[in-house]
Amino acid sequence: MHRFVMTVHCADRPGIVHAFAAGLLDAAANILENAQFCDGLTGSFCLRTRFETPIADSDVVRSHLQPALDRFGGELMLRAEEVRPRALIMVSKFDHCLVDLLYRWSAGELAIDIPVVVSNHPDLAGLIERHGIPFVHLPVTSATKAAQEAQLFALIESHRIDFVVLARYMQILSSNLCAQLPGRVINIHHSFLPGFKGAKPYQQAYERGVKLIGATAHYVTADLDEGPIIEQDVIRVNHAFEPDDLVVLGRDVERQVLARAVKYHAENRLLRLGHRVVVFH
Amino acid sequence: MHRFVMTVHCADRPGIVHAFAAGLLDAAANILENAQFCDGLTGSFCLRTRFETPIADSDVVRSHLQPALDRFGGELMLRAEEVRPRALIMVSKFDHCLVDLLYRWSAGELAIDIPVVVSNHPDLAGLIERHGIPFVHLPVTSATKAAQEAQLFALIESHRIDFVVLARYMQILSSNLCAQLPGRVINIHHSFLPGFKGAKPYQQAYERGVKLIGATAHYVTADLDEGPIIEQDVIRVNHAFEPDDLVVLGRDVERQVLARAVKYHAENRLLRLGHRVVVFH
Amino acid sequence: MHRFVMTVHCADRPGIVHAFAAGLLDAAANILENAQFCDGLTGSFCLRTRFETPIADSDVVRSHLQPALDRFGGELMLRAEEVRPRALIMVSKFDHCLVDLLYRWSAGELAIDIPVVVSNHPDLAGLIERHGIPFVHLPVTSATKAAQEAQLFALIESHRIDFVVLARYMQILSSNLCAQLPGRVINIHHSFLPGFKGAKPYQQAYERGVKLIGATAHYVTADLDEGPIIEQDVIRVNHAFEPDDLVVLGRDVERQVLARAVKYHAENRLLRLGHRVVVFH
Amino acid sequence: MHRFVMTVHCADRPGIVHAFAAGLLDAAANILENAQFCDGLTGSFCLRTRFETPIADSDVVRSHLQPALDRFGGELMLRAEEVRPRALIMVSKFDHCLVDLLYRWSAGELAIDIPVVVSNHPDLAGLIERHGIPFVHLPVTSATKAAQEAQLFALIESHRIDFVVLARYMQILSSNLCAQLPGRVINIHHSFLPGFKGAKPYQQAYERGVKLIGATAHYVTADLDEGPIIEQDVIRVNHAFEPDDLVVLGRDVERQVLARAVKYHAENRLLRLGHRVVVFH
Repeated sequence: MHRFVMTVHCADRPGIVHAFAAGLLDAAANILENAQFCDGLTGSFCLRTRFETPIADSDVVRSHLQPALDRFGGELMLRAEEVRPRALIMVSKFDHCLVDLLYRWSAGELAIDIPVVVSNHPDLAGLIERHGIPFVHLPVTSATKAAQEAQLFALIESHRIDFVVLARYMQILSSNLCAQLPGRVINIHHSFLPGFKGAKPYQQAYERGVKLIGATAHYVTADLDEGPIIEQDVIRVNHAFEPDDLVVLGRDVERQVLARAVKYHAENRLLRLGHRVVVFH
Repeated sequence: MHRFVMTVHCADRPGIVHAFAAGLLDAAANILENAQFCDGLTGSFCLRTRFETPIADSDVVRSHLQPALDRFGGELMLRAEEVRPRALIMVSKFDHCLVDLLYRWSAGELAIDIPVVVSNHPDLAGLIERHGIPFVHLPVTSATKAAQEAQLFALIESHRIDFVVLARYMQILSSNLCAQLPGRVINIHHSFLPGFKGAKPYQQAYERGVKLIGATAHYVTADLDEGPIIEQDVIRVNHAFEPDDLVVLGRDVERQVLARAVKYHAENRLLRLGHRVVVFH
Repeated sequence: MHRFVMTVHCADRPGIVHAFAAGLLDAAANILENAQFCDGLTGSFCLRTRFETPIADSDVVRSHLQPALDRFGGELMLRAEEVRPRALIMVSKFDHCLVDLLYRWSAGELAIDIPVVVSNHPDLAGLIERHGIPFVHLPVTSATKAAQEAQLFALIESHRIDFVVLARYMQILSSNLCAQLPGRVINIHHSFLPGFKGAKPYQQAYERGVKLIGATAHYVTADLDEGPIIEQDVIRVNHAFEPDDLVVLGRDVERQVLARAVKYHAENRLLRLGHRVVVFH
Repeated sequence: MHRFVMTVHCADRPGIVHAFAAGLLDAAANILENAQFCDGLTGSFCLRTRFETPIADSDVVRSHLQPALDRFGGELMLRAEEVRPRALIMVSKFDHCLVDLLYRWSAGELAIDIPVVVSNHPDLAGLIERHGIPFVHLPVTSATKAAQEAQLFALIESHRIDFVVLARYMQILSSNLCAQLPGRVINIHHSFLPGFKGAKPYQQAYERGVKLIGATAHYVTADLDEGPIIEQDVIRVNHAFEPDDLVVLGRDVERQVLARAVKYHAENRLLRLGHRVVVFH
């Protein structure tokens, strides 16, 4: 049996579940997971289904679902689970998120391929190469930004990258690049957004005297720190934590939040609904 | 439009979703929520669906679903949402869970009817009657236990009670009564089960020096504190908390855990799978 | 034996602990709790000590501590525990925080006196009076705001109120009143500040698609929603929660966060350090 | 200035704080952190103080504290912070706790020296040696257990080890070895004790249907899984998590709980009070 995951996003009306279930039955499929969300406010229908079928060819599977899709319109994403999503990871000098992602990947927690890791600094080359992953050093200055992003985009194309993970990459992507990769770039911001946007969020958190600090994984858009939120978490702190302590404690939250977001994206559990993200569990 | 909730529990095989979706389409229904769980270990298929249909009569709705049920066997629960589940609450002297349930009920958080509250002590009569709910005092001793439970069971019958909530009721139900009400009695135990079964769990927690205390809502079975778990939560404590402090702090966890369990049960979000409970969110 | 709690706030230098310990020994006191914080960034020394002594008169106790205070300067707060802080609670129409505070107060969790509850609406008069607490209705419009606040201030004076609790009081206090009550007014804001300041935070949270919602208890200053934070907490939500669901779920967080803040303040566990609040546990 | 940390444990009576503060003043010390706990139930006084002094020699510092110690009896632990505690880590085949401890150690989060890592399996030798730490392979069978533990104890002696960390070491230490290392061995158990003692706790958790799984760091005693608890935490799961999923999810909790326990121990924040552990924050 071959396993597939599909998501459907269309306008809600009666009969959608029946139509897609008919398509799956046509493909002799057995449903393994089925999660659905009907958004009352936007009238959207969102579905994620994992199933197994004797059919190996995803085009054939798709052809069985086509009648339902034709009838209800909308978008269908279909992926054979054996075809693992290909992620390009970007880092700068902080290594905690990268170390965590590579550990989970090695341990089999993340069903992704990592064809390449890119950094604007050379510091983490050894760590990456020790995991058997090619490292590409793409230094950047304000003068060379356009050229560097062109190189990056060429890597994304040549490695057939499905999505990019900014694992504490300390550069802001240009609006141009953001526009070319909608819903395909995940960033980890080291604050509980919308609090403490921009630079030095732990310093801001210290000065504001908050009692919890957090981290936010979101899709990157041209609007800095305003992209649709995928996952967030927090950890309790107190008056005795100075900014440097918050940085250390925050690392634990950052890596967990980012790892969950990457896992959700890789398992096609995420569906963008305007500015919000549906997370299918 | 009329709103219904249904749950289905049967052996898993291809075509179930399609068959029930066909039944719903037949009833001109639109699906509002749809949550499914296929248990790989037991081969069970579990489904909860909320839908709306122009049909008011639940027997008619059921007749549309009957072909699917006939084909796949298993159990179908169907309830019109306007028919609110009827809960009998039992208490002794501690009032925190009762106060919390009554507040949430008054505020519209719990879509249940409460035809009667029963206690083995008279202390909380005023509180209950102030909410416009009849209070029945059923004192109990070891000598009168069988008779008291017979009175209780008569109340359950005469008030057409759907489920019983033990809101810190300090008596153990007899095996006999438990057997008559399978999956219909919810208890709150003031520990994170399976830790600290039996009496004085906060004293036990203090002596063991745990760093978190908790509460557990579970279905009552004849096997004390061993019933299927519905919901649990914990709260952090430290060495400075003496047993009396744990009692106070624990109240917050107990009331929240019980309230969630009652809400889940009332909304038909719970499905017993052997010793485990599926919670549909 | 008589129990006292004291806090000390002065510039940090060697010998402070020794000097105050000498004063306590002079008063034949035994220390029950002792918590200290030295703020490296501001050079502040902060201390909270609970102790018991055969001396009943707090002026006599204070006289034993005076040499230490004279030597190190700073501020000394001393309170006999039997003298309970007097809190004035303000509400509008939402009752969940008030109900929770009154329950905890009745159950002995909050060692405060509540001489009066004030509201700009008459709705909650019955609830308050049923607890044996005088209710004062002080309606307010933009035209009458100065007069209403004068009445409020008169109540604070005549009832010898120590601190004011805004338990979802939906009016903004004037800068003038804020300035008269520094560190004496606690507010609960229904968001995880600094996110979602101002009106309708749950609507804002929904639109931003956050994965956790929260509440913040803070001291009120003239700068709206910018006062020093006392306590915060959050609860997990997902894409299926509409704004009204967030309101319901948020009630649980609001009441717990406010209750903790009131308890900390009443037990003199809080010490303002510029814009931050030291919380002694 | 030289930094020291001390803990004091004695019977509670008036004058202790004053006496030790006098000793510190004698040593021209400035207190940086001061945390105290008086256990009402056992009548114990517990103190942890960090301070800085111009005196470098810890024997000289101790001589200033000796009068207080002589007067009140009890135990005094004094350590110059520059003398880092020496930890021996033991592992078997699971690497997640070890990887986490080594990362935190490399990043400067754990102020310990790790003179040697011991395993009963050779698998993790490469990982350990890559961090520049000697690896010792001590295989064990029931027949060789006494000899293996003798080798282990010899390593502890020769490396002047302060404490041992069992980072998912899958062998049970003999009662004999436990008795030789009281309060000096920290274990991570992969359940929320006292629930699910013994083998395969995640399988047990699955079968019991708990809604939260946890991990417990505790001091090892001859009584398996019954040692004094240092730290615990939990993570939410649901009916869809099979035992293997719990294992993966549990890794996150295990490594965090163990890392915190090691940090607390290394910073002398822990004081055993009978079967309970005081944690100074």
